[in-house]
Amino acid sequence: MMTLLNCDMGESFGIWRLGDDDRIMPAIHIANVACGFHASDFNHMRRTVALAKRHGVAVGAHPSLPDRQGFGRREMKISREELANCLIYQIGALQGFLQAEGMSLNHIKPHGSLYGMAARNPEIAHAVCDAADIFKVPLLGMIETEHERVYTARGHRFMAEFYVDLDYADDGSLIITREHEAVDPAEAAARGVRALREGLVRSIGGRDIRVRAETICVHSDTPGAHELAQTLRDTLVAEGLLPN
Amino acid sequence: MMTLLNCDMGESFGIWRLGDDDRIMPAIHIANVACGFHASDFNHMRRTVALAKRHGVAVGAHPSLPDRQGFGRREMKISREELANCLIYQIGALQGFLQAEGMSLNHIKPHGSLYGMAARNPEIAHAVCDAADIFKVPLLGMIETEHERVYTARGHRFMAEFYVDLDYADDGSLIITREHEAVDPAEAAARGVRALREGLVRSIGGRDIRVRAETICVHSDTPGAHELAQTLRDTLVAEGLLPN
Amino acid sequence: MMTLLNCDMGESFGIWRLGDDDRIMPAIHIANVACGFHASDFNHMRRTVALAKRHGVAVGAHPSLPDRQGFGRREMKISREELANCLIYQIGALQGFLQAEGMSLNHIKPHGSLYGMAARNPEIAHAVCDAADIFKVPLLGMIETEHERVYTARGHRFMAEFYVDLDYADDGSLIITREHEAVDPAEAAARGVRALREGLVRSIGGRDIRVRAETICVHSDTPGAHELAQTLRDTLVAEGLLPN
Amino acid sequence: MMTLLNCDMGESFGIWRLGDDDRIMPAIHIANVACGFHASDFNHMRRTVALAKRHGVAVGAHPSLPDRQGFGRREMKISREELANCLIYQIGALQGFLQAEGMSLNHIKPHGSLYGMAARNPEIAHAVCDAADIFKVPLLGMIETEHERVYTARGHRFMAEFYVDLDYADDGSLIITREHEAVDPAEAAARGVRALREGLVRSIGGRDIRVRAETICVHSDTPGAHELAQTLRDTLVAEGLLPN
Repeated sequence: MMTLLNCDMGESFGIWRLGDDDRIMPAIHIANVACGFHASDFNHMRRTVALAKRHGVAVGAHPSLPDRQGFGRREMKISREELANCLIYQIGALQGFLQAEGMSLNHIKPHGSLYGMAARNPEIAHAVCDAADIFKVPLLGMIETEHERVYTARGHRFMAEFYVDLDYADDGSLIITREHEAVDPAEAAARGVRALREGLVRSIGGRDIRVRAETICVHSDTPGAHELAQTLRDTLVAEGLLPN
Repeated sequence: MMTLLNCDMGESFGIWRLGDDDRIMPAIHIANVACGFHASDFNHMRRTVALAKRHGVAVGAHPSLPDRQGFGRREMKISREELANCLIYQIGALQGFLQAEGMSLNHIKPHGSLYGMAARNPEIAHAVCDAADIFKVPLLGMIETEHERVYTARGHRFMAEFYVDLDYADDGSLIITREHEAVDPAEAAARGVRALREGLVRSIGGRDIRVRAETICVHSDTPGAHELAQTLRDTLVAEGLLPN
Repeated sequence: MMTLLNCDMGESFGIWRLGDDDRIMPAIHIANVACGFHASDFNHMRRTVALAKRHGVAVGAHPSLPDRQGFGRREMKISREELANCLIYQIGALQGFLQAEGMSLNHIKPHGSLYGMAARNPEIAHAVCDAADIFKVPLLGMIETEHERVYTARGHRFMAEFYVDLDYADDGSLIITREHEAVDPAEAAARGVRALREGLVRSIGGRDIRVRAETICVHSDTPGAHELAQTLRDTLVAEGLLPN
Repeated sequence: MMTLLNCDMGESFGIWRLGDDDRIMPAIHIANVACGFHASDFNHMRRTVALAKRHGVAVGAHPSLPDRQGFGRREMKISREELANCLIYQIGALQGFLQAEGMSLNHIKPHGSLYGMAARNPEIAHAVCDAADIFKVPLLGMIETEHERVYTARGHRFMAEFYVDLDYADDGSLIITREHEAVDPAEAAARGVRALREGLVRSIGGRDIRVRAETICVHSDTPGAHELAQTLRDTLVAEGLLPN
């Protein structure tokens, strides 16, 4: 099974910088680009899309709950209808910049708490589908979750992703922290190889959990993200798990 | 010369309501829809676009400087590049909702202070064109201004508009106030007829100023806006200046 | 038992108006003033505090979760420490305007979802106390709740309040809606009298629930709020439950 | 003439970090703390005030125009009354955190474009005074400006400051850029010594301009700011221009 590397990109805001996008972009295949609600703004979105284009990287939307100060990592109650509208706004805005570069939207991947909420709560997963119905692109997510079930039941193309830089709980859910910690690139690469070869990852409780890695995610705000991405890429190419 | 009625619509925000869109929409032909920067949010944009569709009204973008608290009526210094990005974001977001309704973008009309800045400052007018280059729709503006000159020089279709509910200064510029005041519908309609028949309007200083009214604007936050719009429409139809 | 009328005031934002503060202020004794996070801004806060002063109304802070677009009615996960900081910021800002008028802070009453969260969740109630420790003023809340328990355990003066314009659920909790509905002034006044005389209110399920009404709340965004407040005041004065 | 070192501090926002406050704080005497409008938020303000307290640094307010995305470096039109309210809100909010630490407000220094606007435009300088009237603390500024003239005419204590990390134009005004550039610590220290000894600085056009340095400013977002501050401090102590 071959895979693709994806990364959450364009997470600077105003004067503030986050993520080493210039060095990560050459190592990845698809970029999940922030849409201004948890990070980024109109200037950073323009630059991020142009940077992706320069490196032949496909651009997907990485929309969030409306929570810039909390970086979209604060869970909140939001109705299905409101959330769908919230997503359409962000995805539409990103499409404007894609249109400026002659590109088209590649996929949608909810950000932060919204990602976890969609994984656990079918109402939230349905809201994501309501927005995706309009843009007709694949949705990224994790297997054996509510979002996998709802996205596929609604006929959306589901792209299973695996995380090399976040820990998995024993129930297969991701452990999302407000700020990401550094991980060892070689260890992360080994996790990636195992996920692809065996479809398994070791949880923090020491259990083996089923995963599927049609795409592997690296976070741009993980310290040392570009080395992680490059090591992962080199390892996967060497193992024949990624096209050269 | 025939004309079309346009109105700045969808200017509510969150719990706060502004404008009597439900009663104005049936009276107009094209709606300039707020994009979330001076007014509106993802929920109001969804509703406004759906309302326009129900009444067969064409939807244009009404983007603003980033200034919700000041309703986009606060002038600010912004570079051409930043402003273009700011506009692309908003127009793209609106396009998302148009896509949801199977509609396409009809035109672009800068809001509030941005409108006046584009009328006076070619750099600002160029930024508007930079954004319009991407979306390829007509631009609304006033004649004998920098924005008319720049928009047409750059090959954009320019749609001249006339204001029946705002005063003109002696130099032909509009007098923009933070909050709009009520105007007499019959007087406003008479202004509209004169603008169409004679291409003239009386300024606050008592001078006759050249105007062109390919489209006539009514503001939804002018008190009594829906009566104004209806009276204007009825009068123009009766005068043969508007299709029945 | 005598009571005091309180009202959530100053809930306009920018160009948008909400609540008929000019007509409600003369009818109430204490105002819960929005601090810019769910409603209001620096201009409206200035005006609201000045208006309260003119009518001899005491001013308390009405801080919210950071959620202007959702009017603070969207529940969100927030840590005790973050929430305390969020409250200190808002209360401090209001104090600036009180200082401008030579007034001092009278009380604190959490707004919207935060009010309900503090009523149910001791962590949230503790965060409110952490902020109140600094400003040393009474806290408003409902009896038989976690916030009553925590506020009093921490030594804060607790002022029990009763709602005449919101429904109570069978478990004694308030039913908070995104937008308030009109209520009959006479019925509301009768609810107020019963709450004061009998310490009871009828829930939507038809049960009698224990309440205490050291202060009675009227919402300024309830349609017809000023009539409600005036009717309530007149009735309570006539019944000898409010000083003339 | 002795001086004091001041620095614009607490300019992180949400997940984003800016400035090396931990290493700069020990080197300075007074901190100008961001109040949430151009930078900072309730969490960073809490931390910044606590950090200042730990190092015995006096805290002043560093309020801004409402412009987080532009870091308060975007000039805008704002009335005197609105601006005064905008400042009271921010200064009040900071006072809440000072109250939490048992500290009191030391001074006020407008941030970014507002600083320059107050230096050139008496209306803006008056708005700053309108706010300062309430808090009764000294105001920082540059000599031979409108703000010096207005602040002193209105009876406020004026503390003249000198910039070692920004260039001066030939007319004595500062050259404010969106992002600060690195400066050589030794050169900057020499500029500080000359400002104190001779009351002069060399402009970018090569002219000697009169300055007064009751306090010297270092920006926390200038690359290498903590080394700059430490070198400056060491040099000034060695020259007998700063208490040991």
